[in-house]
Amino acid sequence: MATIKPSIPKGTRDFGPAEVARRQHIMRTIREVFELYGFKPIETPAIEQLSTLTGKYGNEGEKLLFKVLNSGDYLAKANEQALTARDSNALVSSISEKGLRYDLTIPFARYVVMHQNDITLPFRRYQMQPVWRADRPQKGRYREFWQCDADVVGSDSLVCEAELVQIYRLVFERLKVPVHIRINNRKVLDGIATAIGAGEKVNSLTIALDKLDKIGWPGVAAEMEQNGFTGEQVASLKGLLEIGRSPEQLAEALAPYPQGAKGIAEFQELFGLLTSHDKQSAQFDPTLARGLDYDTGTILEVRAEGADIGSIGGGGRYDDLTGVFGLPGVSGVGISFGLDRIYDVMDAKGLFPPDAGTVTQALLVHFDQATFARAFQLVQTLRKAGIPSELYPDQAKIQKQMKYAHTNAIPYVLVVGEQELASGMVTLKTMATGDQQYVKPEEAITIIKAG
Amino acid sequence: MATIKPSIPKGTRDFGPAEVARRQHIMRTIREVFELYGFKPIETPAIEQLSTLTGKYGNEGEKLLFKVLNSGDYLAKANEQALTARDSNALVSSISEKGLRYDLTIPFARYVVMHQNDITLPFRRYQMQPVWRADRPQKGRYREFWQCDADVVGSDSLVCEAELVQIYRLVFERLKVPVHIRINNRKVLDGIATAIGAGEKVNSLTIALDKLDKIGWPGVAAEMEQNGFTGEQVASLKGLLEIGRSPEQLAEALAPYPQGAKGIAEFQELFGLLTSHDKQSAQFDPTLARGLDYDTGTILEVRAEGADIGSIGGGGRYDDLTGVFGLPGVSGVGISFGLDRIYDVMDAKGLFPPDAGTVTQALLVHFDQATFARAFQLVQTLRKAGIPSELYPDQAKIQKQMKYAHTNAIPYVLVVGEQELASGMVTLKTMATGDQQYVKPEEAITIIKAG
Repeated sequence: MATIKPSIPKGTRDFGPAEVARRQHIMRTIREVFELYGFKPIETPAIEQLSTLTGKYGNEGEKLLFKVLNSGDYLAKANEQALTARDSNALVSSISEKGLRYDLTIPFARYVVMHQNDITLPFRRYQMQPVWRADRPQKGRYREFWQCDADVVGSDSLVCEAELVQIYRLVFERLKVPVHIRINNRKVLDGIATAIGAGEKVNSLTIALDKLDKIGWPGVAAEMEQNGFTGEQVASLKGLLEIGRSPEQLAEALAPYPQGAKGIAEFQELFGLLTSHDKQSAQFDPTLARGLDYDTGTILEVRAEGADIGSIGGGGRYDDLTGVFGLPGVSGVGISFGLDRIYDVMDAKGLFPPDAGTVTQALLVHFDQATFARAFQLVQTLRKAGIPSELYPDQAKIQKQMKYAHTNAIPYVLVVGEQELASGMVTLKTMATGDQQYVKPEEAITIIKAG
Repeated sequence: MATIKPSIPKGTRDFGPAEVARRQHIMRTIREVFELYGFKPIETPAIEQLSTLTGKYGNEGEKLLFKVLNSGDYLAKANEQALTARDSNALVSSISEKGLRYDLTIPFARYVVMHQNDITLPFRRYQMQPVWRADRPQKGRYREFWQCDADVVGSDSLVCEAELVQIYRLVFERLKVPVHIRINNRKVLDGIATAIGAGEKVNSLTIALDKLDKIGWPGVAAEMEQNGFTGEQVASLKGLLEIGRSPEQLAEALAPYPQGAKGIAEFQELFGLLTSHDKQSAQFDPTLARGLDYDTGTILEVRAEGADIGSIGGGGRYDDLTGVFGLPGVSGVGISFGLDRIYDVMDAKGLFPPDAGTVTQALLVHFDQATFARAFQLVQTLRKAGIPSELYPDQAKIQKQMKYAHTNAIPYVLVVGEQELASGMVTLKTMATGDQQYVKPEEAITIIKAG
């Protein structure tokens, strides 16, 4: 077999021990807070029926779905016409039945429908799994990345929204990442669209507005005018959004439009449920538009202060997510954490503890066959005491063994030489200071455990 | 959009809260033992270059690889000749560049080669991730399933094998699953093949022998004769394996064959490193043959006592795993745990704790808007005290709220009625017993924490 120089697909990554430990630190923090708020874990398969995924993510999203080729002689059932015409799009459904999970929301909707008889509403679930998108890789954007979602389905209460804002606040507080949580309401956007005389074009408006951070006002205006908004409408929109940083003032402007007034009232009720501590990082922002068709109420987005990486979390309320799978009338609200971007922000800001990734607490070092045998006994004693430990497995020069301890950031080395073999003692070396102590194994265990 | 009745691909599964909790119980146990033995976590992408995966798993394995269709107009670069001939096999490499991870060993080998400058040998890594195989689903066999692997690369010491046997013993002891650990050595099989005059056919011998449990001796004999072994050779093999339960006797029979003698000696050295406690569940078995080309030394396999589900773990030593990726001479030894089969065994034997899956400890129950507001304060107090808690989010009849607590196995309910609102007290109900106590919130917290 010819030797190949290995690589991994672009947009994917390997994670070494330190990275895994740091990622687990983030996920553990999120999981603990989710559970503190009564959310329960579920997991769904990485591969879904393609029919579950298609038609859910808009034209742009649809192109980013990874499709799995059918097994065996997949061309046997291929669409002849599409094949003859070399039409990739028309052919795909006949040679691929499965696709990779694109987000956690649609699989959750499918889960709720398939397991509706086992679920008591309201159902609070969390889910922390990878998703795949065939997007162009760039800073903060990967083709395989993790989402950590919490959703409540089967309740219309704004307490759900308030708790989700609290979850964002608490998770990022525990991670020591300063954030801004922006809050809007789809009904506010509906009201604004009506106010500028373009009520029927609210979807087009939100899709354009969603790009405000990236392309600025000139870009948004250009896109809107391209989509048939008048210059006057764009100017009115801009005017409304400028006064809109104050929900009270916007409420006045939207008072004639029931949907808009309701949106402001929902925001005010939600905000009223927050503690003053929660409110420090949360604010109303009528320019926030996620551009998702299924949003119907509150819209949330989180950005890290001083990090130019886009949002690190987002969420919202949807009145009918499961309808597409045959179960209408199940409303819900949810949030998502973008694990990989949170990682990138924390890494750039140096927020990880320096010892993340160190597993082994002690290395047993030896000189010859006799001391090796004794060291092998001792490593078992240490493990019985619950101390993650290693025996250097080969006969090797002491320098090589010490270098191994250093490179792997192992904090303690237990040296077993001829003298220690005779006395039953060990030499315990603290790597950070170079201190050496000649002690009984029990004493070494006590010292290591005291850390 | 037409409503579709949702389903998931065959051989895949959804996991609800109780199942996730149980799976996490198994994974946490394995992870803790891996770390106790100084193994460090890595993670690799679910999607690998197809060139990394092909040619590694034999003809049978190759057919089971899930391939990911190239994005965009994938037919544009398709092999014209294969397309015209409707040749699925010949076409695949031109329309698919990526595949789903089939096991954790080949991605690990790729990882070691790609990250060789960041790794200090010996390198002890563990990895717990899903893998995908387009196999026919059946009892204990899934298309998406999890492996939990630990490997040491860069050491020839049999201490590594001994520690891996200890890890198997300790994990299953902690999980309370009684197991048999079978141990063999590829060199023993080499010696046996030479002894029966078929040294050059050892691969064919091990592939047949690997099926002994499934097809019995008549099946193995038939397969061997089909592959050119004489009836006499098959009879000699059977004879050797029957005496072979005793390594001492087999050692005598294999004494003239250096490779076989070395294999027995390696087993004896390994066995000598085990404690008497370890040895209780481990035994020599010369019929054990994993049928993997890359095994070169020790072979391990674990089965659960009294479970007809095949192996729940396996491993072995390989002298040259990374050679195929251009880095020769890196030897290693590793083991794998089959999470899904371990789950099935534990489930069948009723070995999971009954409360697995219960996250929320307390539910706040209320009667009207005023008590709801007070309950919302109290749920925040409970969470501040570290108690996973929920507020029933909607105004609902008390029966409905109590039923929610019952269905979700929430152990405590805090009732906030008019009287509690006036007094600042709560009624704490212990669901298991029905006991009610009228207490201060601090007292409720103390009682819940005491469990």
